[in-house]
Amino acid sequence: MLIVTTTEPALLPQPTRAEIRVENVLQALGDPVRLVLVRALAAAPEGIACGEVPLPVTKSTRTHHVRTLREAGVISVHAEGTRRISTLRRDDLDSLYPGLLDGVLAAER
Amino acid sequence: MLIVTTTEPALLPQPTRAEIRVENVLQALGDPVRLVLVRALAAAPEGIACGEVPLPVTKSTRTHHVRTLREAGVISVHAEGTRRISTLRRDDLDSLYPGLLDGVLAAER
Repeated sequence: MLIVTTTEPALLPQPTRAEIRVENVLQALGDPVRLVLVRALAAAPEGIACGEVPLPVTKSTRTHHVRTLREAGVISVHAEGTRRISTLRRDDLDSLYPGLLDGVLAAER
Repeated sequence: MLIVTTTEPALLPQPTRAEIRVENVLQALGDPVRLVLVRALAAAPEGIACGEVPLPVTKSTRTHHVRTLREAGVISVHAEGTRRISTLRRDDLDSLYPGLLDGVLAAER
């Protein structure tokens, strides 16, 4: 007998929409490296492996930035085997803070 | 002869609109005490003396927060004698980052 187990991608811990706080979101967004990640995620609704985004930082710094965004409620991260796929929590952010994310993404500088 | 000198309120140093950077604005906004100040300023287009906004911090901490907002380009501060009158740079922020400030001000949490 062949047993096939399918596992859903595991969602890493994150605040619920009700737990998100605007000061945490602003702090998380207020970093040039994290803004690069957020812009890349905004352009890829299906999600991306943040490790694939070119960044001038070490792997451990990158990991720190991704965690900061996840814990603030800006992104969701799913573990798919050894891969970590991140997506922007656009619905949550647009619902809580209409215009904030669009304003940030529109910024030329 | 009576000499009357009128002095314009002196504008404290601040970045020009072109010098404002989104990461600095987000960092400046990403603090609960500074958000209290920004909300108070948003409700008072004519400007307020930040010292009059009730805050659970010392005078020097308050001064630090006001300076952080000014240097990021979020507020203008005019010296009128010994008073410091602050105003929100709403036109500059709305022009650079449409929606950002409204999204932050709309936040219930």
